[in-house]
Amino acid sequence: MKAQQVELFVCPMASPSDTSGLQQLADAGKIKPDSLVALVGKTEGTGSHDDWGRVWADVALRDWTARFLRIPVDEVAKRVIFVLSGGCPGVITPHIAAVTREWVEVPDGESKPDGDKRLVVGRAGSEPMLPEEVGRMGQIRKVAAATRDAMADAGLADARDVHLVMVKVPGLTTASIKDAEERGHTVVSHDLTFGPEGAGVYANDAAALGVAMALGEVRETALSDEVIRRNWNLFSEVAMTSSGGEKRHGEVVVFGNSSLSRSSLRIGHAVTKDFIDAEGVRNALRSAGIRFQGGLPDEADLPNLVHVFAKSVIPGSDIIRGNRITLLDDVDAYQIGKALGGMLIASVTGRTTNYVSGGERNSHQGPPGGNIVAAVARVSR
Amino acid sequence: MKAQQVELFVCPMASPSDTSGLQQLADAGKIKPDSLVALVGKTEGTGSHDDWGRVWADVALRDWTARFLRIPVDEVAKRVIFVLSGGCPGVITPHIAAVTREWVEVPDGESKPDGDKRLVVGRAGSEPMLPEEVGRMGQIRKVAAATRDAMADAGLADARDVHLVMVKVPGLTTASIKDAEERGHTVVSHDLTFGPEGAGVYANDAAALGVAMALGEVRETALSDEVIRRNWNLFSEVAMTSSGGEKRHGEVVVFGNSSLSRSSLRIGHAVTKDFIDAEGVRNALRSAGIRFQGGLPDEADLPNLVHVFAKSVIPGSDIIRGNRITLLDDVDAYQIGKALGGMLIASVTGRTTNYVSGGERNSHQGPPGGNIVAAVARVSR
Amino acid sequence: MKAQQVELFVCPMASPSDTSGLQQLADAGKIKPDSLVALVGKTEGTGSHDDWGRVWADVALRDWTARFLRIPVDEVAKRVIFVLSGGCPGVITPHIAAVTREWVEVPDGESKPDGDKRLVVGRAGSEPMLPEEVGRMGQIRKVAAATRDAMADAGLADARDVHLVMVKVPGLTTASIKDAEERGHTVVSHDLTFGPEGAGVYANDAAALGVAMALGEVRETALSDEVIRRNWNLFSEVAMTSSGGEKRHGEVVVFGNSSLSRSSLRIGHAVTKDFIDAEGVRNALRSAGIRFQGGLPDEADLPNLVHVFAKSVIPGSDIIRGNRITLLDDVDAYQIGKALGGMLIASVTGRTTNYVSGGERNSHQGPPGGNIVAAVARVSR
Amino acid sequence: MKAQQVELFVCPMASPSDTSGLQQLADAGKIKPDSLVALVGKTEGTGSHDDWGRVWADVALRDWTARFLRIPVDEVAKRVIFVLSGGCPGVITPHIAAVTREWVEVPDGESKPDGDKRLVVGRAGSEPMLPEEVGRMGQIRKVAAATRDAMADAGLADARDVHLVMVKVPGLTTASIKDAEERGHTVVSHDLTFGPEGAGVYANDAAALGVAMALGEVRETALSDEVIRRNWNLFSEVAMTSSGGEKRHGEVVVFGNSSLSRSSLRIGHAVTKDFIDAEGVRNALRSAGIRFQGGLPDEADLPNLVHVFAKSVIPGSDIIRGNRITLLDDVDAYQIGKALGGMLIASVTGRTTNYVSGGERNSHQGPPGGNIVAAVARVSR
Repeated sequence: MKAQQVELFVCPMASPSDTSGLQQLADAGKIKPDSLVALVGKTEGTGSHDDWGRVWADVALRDWTARFLRIPVDEVAKRVIFVLSGGCPGVITPHIAAVTREWVEVPDGESKPDGDKRLVVGRAGSEPMLPEEVGRMGQIRKVAAATRDAMADAGLADARDVHLVMVKVPGLTTASIKDAEERGHTVVSHDLTFGPEGAGVYANDAAALGVAMALGEVRETALSDEVIRRNWNLFSEVAMTSSGGEKRHGEVVVFGNSSLSRSSLRIGHAVTKDFIDAEGVRNALRSAGIRFQGGLPDEADLPNLVHVFAKSVIPGSDIIRGNRITLLDDVDAYQIGKALGGMLIASVTGRTTNYVSGGERNSHQGPPGGNIVAAVARVSR
Repeated sequence: MKAQQVELFVCPMASPSDTSGLQQLADAGKIKPDSLVALVGKTEGTGSHDDWGRVWADVALRDWTARFLRIPVDEVAKRVIFVLSGGCPGVITPHIAAVTREWVEVPDGESKPDGDKRLVVGRAGSEPMLPEEVGRMGQIRKVAAATRDAMADAGLADARDVHLVMVKVPGLTTASIKDAEERGHTVVSHDLTFGPEGAGVYANDAAALGVAMALGEVRETALSDEVIRRNWNLFSEVAMTSSGGEKRHGEVVVFGNSSLSRSSLRIGHAVTKDFIDAEGVRNALRSAGIRFQGGLPDEADLPNLVHVFAKSVIPGSDIIRGNRITLLDDVDAYQIGKALGGMLIASVTGRTTNYVSGGERNSHQGPPGGNIVAAVARVSR
Repeated sequence: MKAQQVELFVCPMASPSDTSGLQQLADAGKIKPDSLVALVGKTEGTGSHDDWGRVWADVALRDWTARFLRIPVDEVAKRVIFVLSGGCPGVITPHIAAVTREWVEVPDGESKPDGDKRLVVGRAGSEPMLPEEVGRMGQIRKVAAATRDAMADAGLADARDVHLVMVKVPGLTTASIKDAEERGHTVVSHDLTFGPEGAGVYANDAAALGVAMALGEVRETALSDEVIRRNWNLFSEVAMTSSGGEKRHGEVVVFGNSSLSRSSLRIGHAVTKDFIDAEGVRNALRSAGIRFQGGLPDEADLPNLVHVFAKSVIPGSDIIRGNRITLLDDVDAYQIGKALGGMLIASVTGRTTNYVSGGERNSHQGPPGGNIVAAVARVSR
Repeated sequence: MKAQQVELFVCPMASPSDTSGLQQLADAGKIKPDSLVALVGKTEGTGSHDDWGRVWADVALRDWTARFLRIPVDEVAKRVIFVLSGGCPGVITPHIAAVTREWVEVPDGESKPDGDKRLVVGRAGSEPMLPEEVGRMGQIRKVAAATRDAMADAGLADARDVHLVMVKVPGLTTASIKDAEERGHTVVSHDLTFGPEGAGVYANDAAALGVAMALGEVRETALSDEVIRRNWNLFSEVAMTSSGGEKRHGEVVVFGNSSLSRSSLRIGHAVTKDFIDAEGVRNALRSAGIRFQGGLPDEADLPNLVHVFAKSVIPGSDIIRGNRITLLDDVDAYQIGKALGGMLIASVTGRTTNYVSGGERNSHQGPPGGNIVAAVARVSR
């Protein structure tokens, strides 16, 4: 029987086109052309949609991967999933995390005790999504189906074993809106920004609800076009989603724990209760198996922490624990909100190489006002 | 014998001109015209020098204080020290803290056990400072003298009992530079911004070194014009300073603990070791007497925490614990840096009504890369 | 028979609360309590919705007006229309323009030759507008009705004599959206920003189409909820509109020329064909009667120019005369777009005290890609 | 005898890495490996020093040039001078202008009538510049010498024939400051920004004064370290300069007119008298030989205009023609100032493909408050 052995390597980047960290992993044989399944990172730059740091990083990383896998650049997407989140404001170190998956032979039926499940990953592509489906039930259902496929690919049957689902889906563009309307359809929004009524957030949130539906976090009967970005009590605790106009299909990567895994890593997650909830971040680390001396992490506890993936969605309310904040009025709330999430995580992990995406206001990714935090830890002997 | 009884009240503000919180304190008799010594707060707005939120708040608070004290507006400055820090990016609630001091009769010689020192405050004005002295030894010496006077006014003899010194000094303006140069003098900078060579930061840092000299944190022989904003190993752990072009004198308010005090409050302080050091913030709370169950604060520990005063100076280096951050490259690093400090404090105090000023790059306020945090706690019975 | 005599005075402001220019006009008897009909100005500050410069200016100007008219502050709105546009980025001088209207007795039937029409103003309030009407036909129709009333008040019968219509209408707020939805109605948008799908721009554009309908620029049969912010070929060439959540009624001020007027001023207007069309600005000045030596204005031509009112709406396309610009990608396009309009006007008028509002993307105020410019000139003897 | 034939081709860029325009010129034989002397352009991006759009464009353009010239990338700098100005806010189209120079044989002594001088270019490198020379007399003198060399290379003897001098010089870096101080020298500034006391603007301004000295615009005896960024009455009307920390030598490109040239192009220049002076821009076009029907340019006049190079330095004063502007207070004055210059030029040229650099406050490039505008026109038959 084949069992997964998953590894995750974090490489700080000195510039948007710095692939030296990946090359060192390749030279050391830690990542192999047939084991690399995903590259997930934070790129420096403006973080807005004309973020040339992110675009340049995407070009440089795909070029490197094509050379590494010895395939044409335009086939890279079929082999390796790229999740690049632009913008490293504040204390977020630009970095790329390489996820590898190898298959090892194990005696049939042999599995670790249930208390010692380990990291597995699975991936799947979705059916093509039409522009009129973006941000609506069509997108929700297709993401839900792809999420189930990715769980199967990961060998995960129980939704409770899923701790992180990264999803990329098509958004809208001037061209795709024109296409839909010429075919007599409406679209969810003509706002191409990530503002509160923007097509980008509708796509992200439909994707999040698709994950929630697949994992049973939200019943399908509770879902409709009308609840998207309206009923914030419907959400996923593990979905991190992004959207891009250029894509036609959705892509899903599932991270979970399985008793069949032979990885030395474990993943866990938690949600923060509000925007300043450091305890929620600590709970995510605990969920991954990190134990704190005396209740809070110190240097001695953290070597086994491999990586953290977190969202930093801005709350919809300007009240935190009874007091007013002015974040929602900041013209650059998008960037500051992301920076604040980076500080909240770094103040707990004691490092700046954390994956923190977000900045948008309100989301079905995580509970109202709170955010998702997933942590990967090395199982200490 | 007279002993001090000091109180501190924190009032969130709903807008820059909101004085309702102060009025409620006045109506309740908690602040009296002859007991109000200082108003220290954070005002919402841009935080830059054309911050109309701060200017409007200053006008509204002085008007209110003049009416409350029944004196002309232009005499308010002689009676009450105003420290208004502009800009509440992120999770900093706009608020004003009223500091009151009353004198109570106590039997001569009677004093609390040394282990139970309580909050006292003292204030003093400095000699006039000439533009050619700004950001130089002249300003350092005059702030040092005023700091000693304020310690005397507080009844503090031992520098170790001083936990926070707030200072306001003159900066430079086009007019005062012209005046100095016409008299044949040079000035420290023609840059009127708070950039790394700006007159504003030179004034702030000279003030900080003045406090350090008065408290013996830095020997006078180690000081000269050349070390200001050059030798970062010279610093104060308790000085929070600001500068304004319009002023001619410096103003100093000292907060410390004394065995002669009859206050129910105690102050403490600590410094963070770097920009993400939440433990440094916790140490400040511990220093003020807050005890944490299980090592880190939870809701049960925090009712006795009255207020926190913190700096958020941006580090001079772009490396934090071995990894690069891009904060120093952010065009809005000034605002983001302030916002990040607000999050670091709020993630520990569990509230957003914290006084956090800063955003400038490098300072003699606090150690290289680290920042000052002072906390005031109610002594639990 | 009564004829109008309208004057317009432009006062630069040294700070948001500077009313000294108005006071000088009052002291000189140029504006009288019963002749002041409108205050229209640009205020310094961020220009975004937490623009404390604008809010402070509004408070200060209403206080001054209440004292000047000897009425309570809350009655000022009934007597004088305030149009304060926030944000003076670039080369727009903060200023307030006072519009006065006096009635003079003239022999019945006597009127100026048709070629010598002069400035008249008229004003009217609209029916109350419900939140569900904002940005929809309901708002269009009520603005159209108020525009007709304001024309009547101005003594204008022919739409061709109308050169500027300033309109303020209610926008949406969290509270008014809740109210509408509790009564079973939908609202045009949940986005409270001025983004492309924001409630603010929908309200502004419905108001503009209301003016267009009243003036016959657009036929009522061509209008419906569906065309608002969709069919940009429907627009007004004279409507400048703004919206605020706090209002319940619309307010309209019409500026035009009448042969019955005894003013020494004349108004004219034109539209620019695109974002860099200085000739369009010159055409507006020509329309008001300014003659240029040698085809373009020089200092000798401009003394008779009293004031310019212009919009600077960002084009919906990123192509200008065949070449791509990146303005639409700028995160601060709103502010830069306003600043660019200020430069376009100032480069023609040779002064910086121009009223330039805008920054939003696309509008029914003016043709696609172009903007409205109205000019008031003193008729040279 | 050899005579120059100079051409200039403007290629809009669809993205920072778009070299398709240059490739088309190469395919059409309009630019040849041995005729390409300079690439001067505007790149889209933030315009600040972490402008990844500019960095990516620089990498892509050098790669293309290396392939085109069939030389290693690190030898490109010796053959072709790159001047890439980052940031296209507002109405500045990202573009690259290719300057080519060919030598044609002409009968000795034959020269065009003096009234018909045509475009020539010349280039030169400077002596190495030490960090302690940056922003001081050392840099001024070395730029002056290189400017004379470049004039000789262009075949220009009379400074009045020089209409544009583009200069790139070394700035300061943390490393070069350390180097200078370890050798016992001081540096002009520790501020590495382009703020008013920043090393970047000192380097730019020393370079500008070097050009002014070479052309006799300023006498050498009037120059000293003390006047740099102090005495604004010393300036060049033709110097456009930039600085970069990584460089060790200065580079100079001179554009002028010569009766020996066989080019079909002519260059001219003028300066604006203040920040809104469109007439100054028109004068530059007139200086290049463009004639306007009726005093101002219209479509019919502009086909012969090939390109415009302009600075947009922010004035040191906040008063324009007697009225206050708030530009100097804008936190993003650097970007807005650049955008405003772009609009001023575009409003005259009727196109957006103009080279406009600047944003810094005050400069010896151009007169106090005004800016330099150079124009290249095709000589109409």
